[in-house]
Amino acid sequence: MAPQYAPSLRSRLAPLLLILQTGFIIIAALCFETKETNKLDRKPFLHYYPEFQDVNVMVILGFGFLCTFPVRYGFSGSGFNLLVAIIATQWALILNGIDSWYNTKIIRIDLKSIIKAELCAVSALISIGSVLGKTNPVQLTPIALLEVTGFVLNEWLLQTLLKVRPPNSIMLLHVFGALFGLMLTWILYRDGSKQGFEKEKYDEKSGLFSMLGVVFLWMFWPSFNSVLVDDRTRLKAVCSTYLALAVSAVTAAALAVLSSPRGKLNLIQMQSCILSGGAAVGVSVSVVQQPWEAMALGFTAAILSTLGYRYLKTHLLIAFECHDTCAVLSTHGLPGLLGWLAQLVLQIKDCDDHTVAVRFAVFHICTLFTTVSLSLSMGTLTAFLLKWKFWRPPQNKKCFDDQAFWEVFTHKSQKR
Amino acid sequence: MAPQYAPSLRSRLAPLLLILQTGFIIIAALCFETKETNKLDRKPFLHYYPEFQDVNVMVILGFGFLCTFPVRYGFSGSGFNLLVAIIATQWALILNGIDSWYNTKIIRIDLKSIIKAELCAVSALISIGSVLGKTNPVQLTPIALLEVTGFVLNEWLLQTLLKVRPPNSIMLLHVFGALFGLMLTWILYRDGSKQGFEKEKYDEKSGLFSMLGVVFLWMFWPSFNSVLVDDRTRLKAVCSTYLALAVSAVTAAALAVLSSPRGKLNLIQMQSCILSGGAAVGVSVSVVQQPWEAMALGFTAAILSTLGYRYLKTHLLIAFECHDTCAVLSTHGLPGLLGWLAQLVLQIKDCDDHTVAVRFAVFHICTLFTTVSLSLSMGTLTAFLLKWKFWRPPQNKKCFDDQAFWEVFTHKSQKR
Amino acid sequence: MAPQYAPSLRSRLAPLLLILQTGFIIIAALCFETKETNKLDRKPFLHYYPEFQDVNVMVILGFGFLCTFPVRYGFSGSGFNLLVAIIATQWALILNGIDSWYNTKIIRIDLKSIIKAELCAVSALISIGSVLGKTNPVQLTPIALLEVTGFVLNEWLLQTLLKVRPPNSIMLLHVFGALFGLMLTWILYRDGSKQGFEKEKYDEKSGLFSMLGVVFLWMFWPSFNSVLVDDRTRLKAVCSTYLALAVSAVTAAALAVLSSPRGKLNLIQMQSCILSGGAAVGVSVSVVQQPWEAMALGFTAAILSTLGYRYLKTHLLIAFECHDTCAVLSTHGLPGLLGWLAQLVLQIKDCDDHTVAVRFAVFHICTLFTTVSLSLSMGTLTAFLLKWKFWRPPQNKKCFDDQAFWEVFTHKSQKR
Repeated sequence: MAPQYAPSLRSRLAPLLLILQTGFIIIAALCFETKETNKLDRKPFLHYYPEFQDVNVMVILGFGFLCTFPVRYGFSGSGFNLLVAIIATQWALILNGIDSWYNTKIIRIDLKSIIKAELCAVSALISIGSVLGKTNPVQLTPIALLEVTGFVLNEWLLQTLLKVRPPNSIMLLHVFGALFGLMLTWILYRDGSKQGFEKEKYDEKSGLFSMLGVVFLWMFWPSFNSVLVDDRTRLKAVCSTYLALAVSAVTAAALAVLSSPRGKLNLIQMQSCILSGGAAVGVSVSVVQQPWEAMALGFTAAILSTLGYRYLKTHLLIAFECHDTCAVLSTHGLPGLLGWLAQLVLQIKDCDDHTVAVRFAVFHICTLFTTVSLSLSMGTLTAFLLKWKFWRPPQNKKCFDDQAFWEVFTHKSQKR
Repeated sequence: MAPQYAPSLRSRLAPLLLILQTGFIIIAALCFETKETNKLDRKPFLHYYPEFQDVNVMVILGFGFLCTFPVRYGFSGSGFNLLVAIIATQWALILNGIDSWYNTKIIRIDLKSIIKAELCAVSALISIGSVLGKTNPVQLTPIALLEVTGFVLNEWLLQTLLKVRPPNSIMLLHVFGALFGLMLTWILYRDGSKQGFEKEKYDEKSGLFSMLGVVFLWMFWPSFNSVLVDDRTRLKAVCSTYLALAVSAVTAAALAVLSSPRGKLNLIQMQSCILSGGAAVGVSVSVVQQPWEAMALGFTAAILSTLGYRYLKTHLLIAFECHDTCAVLSTHGLPGLLGWLAQLVLQIKDCDDHTVAVRFAVFHICTLFTTVSLSLSMGTLTAFLLKWKFWRPPQNKKCFDDQAFWEVFTHKSQKR
Repeated sequence: MAPQYAPSLRSRLAPLLLILQTGFIIIAALCFETKETNKLDRKPFLHYYPEFQDVNVMVILGFGFLCTFPVRYGFSGSGFNLLVAIIATQWALILNGIDSWYNTKIIRIDLKSIIKAELCAVSALISIGSVLGKTNPVQLTPIALLEVTGFVLNEWLLQTLLKVRPPNSIMLLHVFGALFGLMLTWILYRDGSKQGFEKEKYDEKSGLFSMLGVVFLWMFWPSFNSVLVDDRTRLKAVCSTYLALAVSAVTAAALAVLSSPRGKLNLIQMQSCILSGGAAVGVSVSVVQQPWEAMALGFTAAILSTLGYRYLKTHLLIAFECHDTCAVLSTHGLPGLLGWLAQLVLQIKDCDDHTVAVRFAVFHICTLFTTVSLSLSMGTLTAFLLKWKFWRPPQNKKCFDDQAFWEVFTHKSQKR
């Protein structure tokens, strides 16, 4: 019977990707340029290269394997993440370069521009975490494109209107991505979500694969937070992030046990909460001065994130019909907001002048307001676009199932 | 019954490895030397160290886990790769040093010499991909030794006779390794190959392990292509490789869907094809100037590689009785040839003088001709050596089976 | 029935971790400080950062996944390792800073201090390898704290009384950790150990996860051994470690085949023995001058380690009732002692003056004596503390079982 099978990807995915990719190559032929570095300029290469690779590992391996926990969705989890990451990176490379193209007619490609593009792509990777297992790769492509467009627009607004410094505006990617994803999954709600999808579970081995992704995110997060800050504060950014992550990992373990009905740890919850410190410090990296501030931030972020995972996630599902697969709200959204708040408090605390403090507060609130509203509206827009039948979303029983998209081993081998 | 069991490795593998290793240590005692670097010289250390580690990760982890996709051959896939890699590296370290030993009676060991040796070892790792699952570790050792010997000889010929620059000659490893491997697997053809070996299949978890290896190769390939080029063009090499890989990943996904009878993606095919851009740019890294050239190269490489995987591989098996397990021809061979062609075209395009262009073309064709003929002849030689019963190749039904070489868990635990 | 279930972790683990972490944050608020680096000082950041990340990967990923081989203990293996690593690192950061706090009232946090703290944490990670599967996370916390205290005390004794240079004293972590762990597992012996625990076995997939951890340890060990030595000898340390590891991997494979009753390789044995060269060279890194010395050391270490794994481990279990899960004695203990011996021999060989040689020998023997006695006594102390019923150790049948500590998938999903 035909409806038994997932619809073929051929007529949708292949043309979409080929057209996109050809378009990117044409744009590259018109605008991209890599400048030869002269001897004296070698420093900037060394400067960024190890951190560039760390960020690259986080984007491709970290986020990719993070999504492999559903027991029958490993191929899709890691494969689609790779696809979204590289489409979003190429698109961000183009959008980020519009400004310089406007002035000089070329878009310079170097390590720094690729790193910035990858960070923009991360906001899309966070969002697709919330719809993991419930979308097909054809739908993921417009998500990647629209989200990056929204994010770059937000960055541009913040930097030109509110004079927010580039690293600060980029780090809001946690908030942007989480809210965008939340809108997506809310509007694309499926009836099957409440009782849980048949294949939405993990086993001993798939849990370890996602542990691997998480561990890479955890280890290289200091590079993620420090790669864009200037040299003077780089060491501080690395140490703060390291300490915050350490504290949030210990705290997350303690709280996982406390919040569990049977007094046990929960792997997926821990994977989500041990990262919260990194996101919180990331958003506030420019103002965290002392190690203890970073540690306290990590502690608070882990509490928030655990509460979010245990209570908010269920509440959202039951009360608001919003099924957040990877709990992006508690992993990225809440810690990101906490980081924003910490930045506000720490900045005001350091201000001697009352007027400056109030002014900063207003600007800072506007920053958040812009980000949140742009994220929610772009998310809504994208979600309504995706509701269109054209995209042929997978049926409920094909959710979290690689067989819908991947040629798998024959049944004989599956039984072995 | 005796023939039920795979022959013991004790009388072959252990003496072979011990004699080899003792020999290497004796040679090291006579020739190797590590010079202390003085304070001023520290730069070269920092210079290479991160990229050295990236290449190391590709060689040990990337290629190793790439070979773990057969469902019951994971231990062998990763373990034998490690063994071949380190034997080949030590041997290449010695062979590469003969020149300097001839002049100064010492072979200098530093990061650069280890990196070069590892790149030579990669040609052997590519070759063993084609006979994966159908050989025992005793056979892999002479493959490693003979292939590296052939490759170093080829390098020496190209550099002394044809004045090819070192990075260019080393990057031909993709072509050399693929053709060497193809000869091996053609001559060592087994009757069972056509209907497929009983255990030559992958499952959800073993596919993810090989995905892990591929992802590491994909992420660190920019280091692989840039580590040997001079400082001025390093950034360009990194950016070109990154873009080519990105494009070939998107294109490979689109073509996988197009070429599949049921319109689905195929994990092993994608793993093989998303890497093609890296190999193509690697061979032509010295002449790729513009980002779009790298991207177009990645696009073409992915097309070639997909066609090779879907049609050439099957055709080779049916028409020529040549069973290429890891599809090294389409992953490394064809993209390598494409890179060679791109180098020819781009170089000639930049030439103003007609004579220079013709001269370059002749030299360039000679380069390929030397590499191909040396690779094919060394491959043939090695394969005939391996046909000797002395090596006790595994029986057909023990192909792709760890139990032939590894002490495994008892049957009780296997059933769990 | 109540005794069927493992006791809840809630009343023990959660308060313990929360109190500890709050304590650490308070200490950090009082003492920790990160200094802003000025422009000129940027060098030290670049200097250490890539190696810092390599060590970080070894500590978190390498040791963590090394412990995932028991088929039903993967979550605990990787998760508890992370927990112990970050508690031990934070504690070591504080203890290592006492000296500077005494003088300046601040503890400086920078990359170097974090690296040193992570190396101290490694001694604890080695020890918990010996009790892997037989303890609960509540017990692992005091192990981490007491072991790091003992190790830092040992370091301080060696550096102030015997004037041992910091890198040399820290590298004794292999000996310290292994003996500490041995005492622990000897005193905490369980009756079930001799016939083997029900779930103490590995399968095709869990073996590959631990292979992944081992491969990361193997690849990044050169960074581990070189990160603390001064710039002049750094390249030498990297090359020596690389060569020693290569030789010990080949030798371990040969010996695994020789020592196996059926002439096959053994994955867990190889994983343990291929690392031995790194530990041996680590301890003697300051005196290994020539590549062949490192290679010979790697060769001997692999022999010792294989003998230890095959014969000593069984002997210890049968004769002394000491069940060493990860074979830390043969992986770290014996190679560490060999490195100590190599350092003695090589140093004396280079001495012209007889008196200096004897004096060095006496000092060197005192170094080992101090380390061994402190390690054994701290291990005994910790073990007796852990015998207390308060910690609620898991029952024998819950050993090597994630279900005792982790909320797992329902039974339905387990059967799938």
